[in-house]
Amino acid sequence: MSREVRISRLMSDLFPLNRSITGDGTRATLSRIAQEVVGLRIHEVPTGTDVLDWRIPDEWNLHRARLIGPDGVVVDTADSNLHIVGYSEPVQTEISLEDLQPRLHSLPTQPTVVPYRTSYYARTWGFCLTDQVRCTLQPVQYTVDIDTSLEPGALSYGELVVPGRRRDEILVSTHVCHPALANDNLTGIAAAAAVAEWAVSHQREFTYRILFIPATIGAVTWLARNRETLQSIRHGVVLTGLGDPGQLTYKRSRRGDTSFDRLMTHVVQELGGRSVDWSPYGYDERQFCSPGFDLPVGRLSRTPHGTYAEYHTSADNLSFVSPSQVSSAIDALIGAFELIEEGIVPRNRAPYGEPQLGRRGLFRHLGGSLDAASTETAVLWLLSLGDGNHDLMEIADRSQLPLAVLRDAARALQRVDLLAFD
Amino acid sequence: MSREVRISRLMSDLFPLNRSITGDGTRATLSRIAQEVVGLRIHEVPTGTDVLDWRIPDEWNLHRARLIGPDGVVVDTADSNLHIVGYSEPVQTEISLEDLQPRLHSLPTQPTVVPYRTSYYARTWGFCLTDQVRCTLQPVQYTVDIDTSLEPGALSYGELVVPGRRRDEILVSTHVCHPALANDNLTGIAAAAAVAEWAVSHQREFTYRILFIPATIGAVTWLARNRETLQSIRHGVVLTGLGDPGQLTYKRSRRGDTSFDRLMTHVVQELGGRSVDWSPYGYDERQFCSPGFDLPVGRLSRTPHGTYAEYHTSADNLSFVSPSQVSSAIDALIGAFELIEEGIVPRNRAPYGEPQLGRRGLFRHLGGSLDAASTETAVLWLLSLGDGNHDLMEIADRSQLPLAVLRDAARALQRVDLLAFD
Amino acid sequence: MSREVRISRLMSDLFPLNRSITGDGTRATLSRIAQEVVGLRIHEVPTGTDVLDWRIPDEWNLHRARLIGPDGVVVDTADSNLHIVGYSEPVQTEISLEDLQPRLHSLPTQPTVVPYRTSYYARTWGFCLTDQVRCTLQPVQYTVDIDTSLEPGALSYGELVVPGRRRDEILVSTHVCHPALANDNLTGIAAAAAVAEWAVSHQREFTYRILFIPATIGAVTWLARNRETLQSIRHGVVLTGLGDPGQLTYKRSRRGDTSFDRLMTHVVQELGGRSVDWSPYGYDERQFCSPGFDLPVGRLSRTPHGTYAEYHTSADNLSFVSPSQVSSAIDALIGAFELIEEGIVPRNRAPYGEPQLGRRGLFRHLGGSLDAASTETAVLWLLSLGDGNHDLMEIADRSQLPLAVLRDAARALQRVDLLAFD
Repeated sequence: MSREVRISRLMSDLFPLNRSITGDGTRATLSRIAQEVVGLRIHEVPTGTDVLDWRIPDEWNLHRARLIGPDGVVVDTADSNLHIVGYSEPVQTEISLEDLQPRLHSLPTQPTVVPYRTSYYARTWGFCLTDQVRCTLQPVQYTVDIDTSLEPGALSYGELVVPGRRRDEILVSTHVCHPALANDNLTGIAAAAAVAEWAVSHQREFTYRILFIPATIGAVTWLARNRETLQSIRHGVVLTGLGDPGQLTYKRSRRGDTSFDRLMTHVVQELGGRSVDWSPYGYDERQFCSPGFDLPVGRLSRTPHGTYAEYHTSADNLSFVSPSQVSSAIDALIGAFELIEEGIVPRNRAPYGEPQLGRRGLFRHLGGSLDAASTETAVLWLLSLGDGNHDLMEIADRSQLPLAVLRDAARALQRVDLLAFD
Repeated sequence: MSREVRISRLMSDLFPLNRSITGDGTRATLSRIAQEVVGLRIHEVPTGTDVLDWRIPDEWNLHRARLIGPDGVVVDTADSNLHIVGYSEPVQTEISLEDLQPRLHSLPTQPTVVPYRTSYYARTWGFCLTDQVRCTLQPVQYTVDIDTSLEPGALSYGELVVPGRRRDEILVSTHVCHPALANDNLTGIAAAAAVAEWAVSHQREFTYRILFIPATIGAVTWLARNRETLQSIRHGVVLTGLGDPGQLTYKRSRRGDTSFDRLMTHVVQELGGRSVDWSPYGYDERQFCSPGFDLPVGRLSRTPHGTYAEYHTSADNLSFVSPSQVSSAIDALIGAFELIEEGIVPRNRAPYGEPQLGRRGLFRHLGGSLDAASTETAVLWLLSLGDGNHDLMEIADRSQLPLAVLRDAARALQRVDLLAFD
Repeated sequence: MSREVRISRLMSDLFPLNRSITGDGTRATLSRIAQEVVGLRIHEVPTGTDVLDWRIPDEWNLHRARLIGPDGVVVDTADSNLHIVGYSEPVQTEISLEDLQPRLHSLPTQPTVVPYRTSYYARTWGFCLTDQVRCTLQPVQYTVDIDTSLEPGALSYGELVVPGRRRDEILVSTHVCHPALANDNLTGIAAAAAVAEWAVSHQREFTYRILFIPATIGAVTWLARNRETLQSIRHGVVLTGLGDPGQLTYKRSRRGDTSFDRLMTHVVQELGGRSVDWSPYGYDERQFCSPGFDLPVGRLSRTPHGTYAEYHTSADNLSFVSPSQVSSAIDALIGAFELIEEGIVPRNRAPYGEPQLGRRGLFRHLGGSLDAASTETAVLWLLSLGDGNHDLMEIADRSQLPLAVLRDAARALQRVDLLAFD
C-alpha cells in the first residue's frame, strides 16, 4: 500500500472521531494511530494533576448535542462534531432566541462554514453553525439538548521512543485534539506516523521521540513529566497543517539559529518555501520553547495557520487536503533527518594545501580552463570550509550550492578518505 | 501656569542677556534659570585653571559695542548681542573700510540676517551684520567703539543633583553660552529645567544630574572636576534645538548601542522622528563621549544643527521656536526616563511552559480563533523573550509592537506576578 | 628607464619562453626576473619529492612539437608554445584524423584563438589549435612529432626575502608557469618584481617575502618547505591578471575580514574597483588559505580570471595588456603596504575630552559655523574613534572619509603628538 494511500485512509478513519484535549474520541484517535505506529505507548494522566502552571481539567465526553427549533433540528453533532463548543457542559433546557444568541458562533464573513470553538477552562456551553442557518432562526423558543459529561478521568497522549546508537534525541510532536479538521491536524498526525515508521525501519545515530498529544495542556503535561529527558533533545519539530496547497513554511525556534533551524531553512527554501522567525503564538512550539525550557524545536507547516480562510472551520475538511502534499512534506523532513544522521559538520582530513584530487578521480585531468561544474566546485568548498567549524548549511550559504550537491560531493570525498563528519 | 507658558516666559527673559562662555550675562542667565530650578547650585571656576587639555580663558564682559560711520551708527549691540564677535577685545579706533572689511562677518547667501561668530582663544575683534547693510558701506573712515573687558575672573555653570533611591545617575546637560539665539539653545535650557522640575517632584530610582554649562570649555571643566562621579552615570543626554518645527532627532552615543540609545531610538521613531549615528562633531556629547570617558550620553534635538537656515543667525529668534514643540520633546524625554525608572529588562516569573493566562484574566476564554490583538500578543512576547536577557527595546524590535503597548502588557503581567523587572 | 618601460621590456622578454611547472623555460624565466629582482634566490627541488599531499612530477622539457599533414605543418610550437598540451609526452607517430581528434583542443565559440591546456599528472599528449584551422583538417594520415622529455630533474622557484625592522612578514606571491599568456601571468610577475624593488629601496617595519613559483605544485612545495615561516606572515597577496583594461578586483582571504582584506577593500573601492568574497577556486590563494594553513592571503587582479574572453587563450598576448594598468595596480598595492608600514590602528594620546585643536593650528579660530571640511572632520573622527580598538578602515567606514584624507589628518595629529599608531 503506497504511503499516500495509507495517509488518505488514516485521515479518513480519524476524521469523524470527536477529538478534544481529553476523552474517548482522543483515545480512539490514539488507538487508530497505534495501528500505524507499532509500539506506540498510550499514557493516561489523571485529571486534577498539577502540571507546571496548569491543572488537567475534567475529562469531557460528548454523546450527542442538538439544537432543536419549532421546525426541527437546527444543528446536530451527528452531522459534525464542530457544531458543539468544545468542553460544553451538559444542558437540557428551553431557551428564547434572544438568550440563545450569545451561545451561538458563526462567521458572518464566511456564511456557509461552521467555525471551531472551545472553552476548556471556563465552564460554558454553545453551538457553532453556519451564518446562513443562523440568519433563518426565528424569535421563538428553542430546545437545547447537550448530552456531554465533564467528570474526573484522564488526559491521554501517545509516545513512541525509537532508540538510536546515541542517546541524543530528535523530538517530533503533533497535536491530536482537533475534531473534524483535516489540515489542522490530521495531516500532522499522518506525517508524524510516517516519521515513526521511517525511524523504526532504519539504523540511526539519533534516538527519535514521537509525541501525539493534546495541544497546550498535553505539551505542558509531557514537559512536566519528562524534565530529565529534555537535556537530551538536540533537534525538534512540531508538525501541523501539511496538506494544504501552499509551499512549506518552517518556523524557527525561539533560539532562532539552531543548526536545525538553519538546516530546515535551506530545505524549505530549496523547495520554494520559506523560513519565518520565531513568534510566541502558534502551536506547541510555544510550550517547548518557553524561556525556562528553550528547546531547539521549530515547526513545519505549509500555509501558516490563521492565514488561510479554511483555518479552524468546517471548510478544513478532507477535500481541502492532499495526501501528496503531506507526503512531500514528509520527504522533506526525513531528508533533513537523514542529513543530520549522516553528519552536518565536515572536516577536511588533508587540510594542509589542496589535496591532489586528480589522482583520486575527483578532478578533470586536463587543466587550463576552469569549469564551474557543481560537483567539483562543491568538493573545493567542502575542503576549504570543512575545518570542523562550519556546517553544511554555512557552506551552502557561502557557496550558493544546494545541500544535495554538497552532500553528494561530501560522499565522494568520504569515499577517498578526504573528509569526515564530526 | 501651564508648562508652555513657563517655557515661553523663560525664553523671553533669557533672550536679551549677553551669554558667552564666561561673564555676567551667563551669570544672569543662571540666576534666571535658578528661579525655575529650585536648588540649582552655581559653580564659579577661576579663569586660568587648567582643565584637561584646556585652560579657562579670561572672563569676557560686554558693556556695549558700536560701529559708527559718517551717517551714524552701523551696528550696535544694544540692538542685538550678535553684532559683536564673541570675546572681542576692547577697541577704540578709527579705521578705513578696507581695513575694516576682514573684521566684518555677514552671509551673502542670507543677506538679511546677522551671523553668530566667536573667537574665544585667539584674541581678535569684529562685527557681525547683515550683508544688506554691509553692502551699503562707503569707502570712508569708521569709528570702532568696543567697550568690552577681558580679565581674570571665573567660568560659571549651574548644576542640580536630585538624589534617587540608587546612586546610579542619569545626566542631562545643556549649554548656556549662546547669546540671542532661541532654538540654540534657550529651548535646551527650558527642557532641562522641566526635567529638573519633574525629577524633584517624583519618587525615582535614579539620581538625576542636570547641568547648565558653557559649551565645550564648560563640559571640559565639569568633566575635569567630577571624575569620581562619571562611573555612576548610567544614561545621559545633551539637550539642544528642541523648538523648531522639525521632528525629533536622537543622536546615538559614541558606543552606539547603549540601552538609552536603543530606547530613545524607539521613542523618537514612534513619534515620527529618527535616530542618527554618532559623529564627532556637534555639542557637548563630543566631550562626554571622548574616548577616554566614553560615557553613555546621546543628544536629543529636532532638526539637526547646521541643516536649517536659521542656525547660528539672528533668524534663530523667539518667533522661530514654539513652546509646544519644546514641551512635546520634554514629554518624550520624560516618558523615556519613566520607562527606565519602571525597568526595561523583564523577567518571566513562570518560565516553564506558558502560564495559564485565562484564569488570570489575561486571555480570552473562548479558544479556537487566534486574535492578533495587541495586548494579548504583547503578553505572549513578554513571556517568551522575558528571560532577563532581552530588554523592552529588543522585544519591541522583534515583535514590531510599540513600547507603550509592551509597557501596558508588562504592567498587566506584573499585577498577576508573572513578570518582574530586573 | 621608467617603470612602465621596464614592465614592458620584462614582459616582452618573458613572453616567448616556454614556461611550465618545471623545466628550462621556467628556469630561463626566473633568470630574467633575477635581472630585475636583485638577490632573488633560485631553489631547485628534486622531482619525486613528496610535498604535502602531492609528489613533484618529472621535469618536462619541450624542444619542439609539430603536427604535420599532407599539405604541410598544421601547428608548430615554434609559432606558439600554446600549441602543445603542457606536459605532453614524447611521440613520433602517424595517426588518422579520427584517432587524432580526441588529442586536439580548440574553441568552437572562439574559432580564431588557440586555447591553453595542460596535463601535469596524467600522462597524455595533444595539440591546441584554432578551431578555424581544425575545421580544415582532412580525413587523412597526420604525422605527430612531439620532441619533449619527461625525466627526473627539479622544480624551480624564486624567492626574495627583504628583512624589515620586524620579523613579521608580508607575503607576495605570483605564478611563473604559464607560457605565452601575458595577463596571466606576466603582469603578476612584473608587479611582484616592482614590489621587490620598492621593498629593497625603502626602510620598512615589515619583512617582505616575494615568491615566483609554479602554480599549485610550486605553492604546495614552498608551503611544505617553510612551515616554520608561516607563523610570521601577517598579510599576504597573490598577484595575477593586472594588465587588462578592467578595474581592480581584490579577492578576500578565506578568513574574509583580516585587516589586509579590509584595507584592500577600501583601496580598490576608492579606485572604482571592488572586493569579492573568498571562493576556493582561483590561484595559489587556494594553497595559502587551505584550512590547515589559513593564512591571511588575498588576491589582487583586475578582471577576474574566467570572466574575460581572452583568458587562457592565445588572445591573452602582449597587445591585450597595458604596462600602465600594471603600474597603477602596483601603485595601489604599494600604497596599501605604505599604510601598513605607517600603522593602521591609531591611538588618541589625549583621550579625556576633546584636545584644544585651535592652539595647535588644527582648527579654524573663528567659531560659530560648522564647516564640514574634510581635514577637520577627519581629525575629529580620528580622535573620537582612535582608542586603539578601531583601525583606519573602520574609521573610514563610519566617517565615510577616504583613507588618504584620514592618513593626512593622522599625520597632522602625529606632528603635534596627539595621535600615535600602535
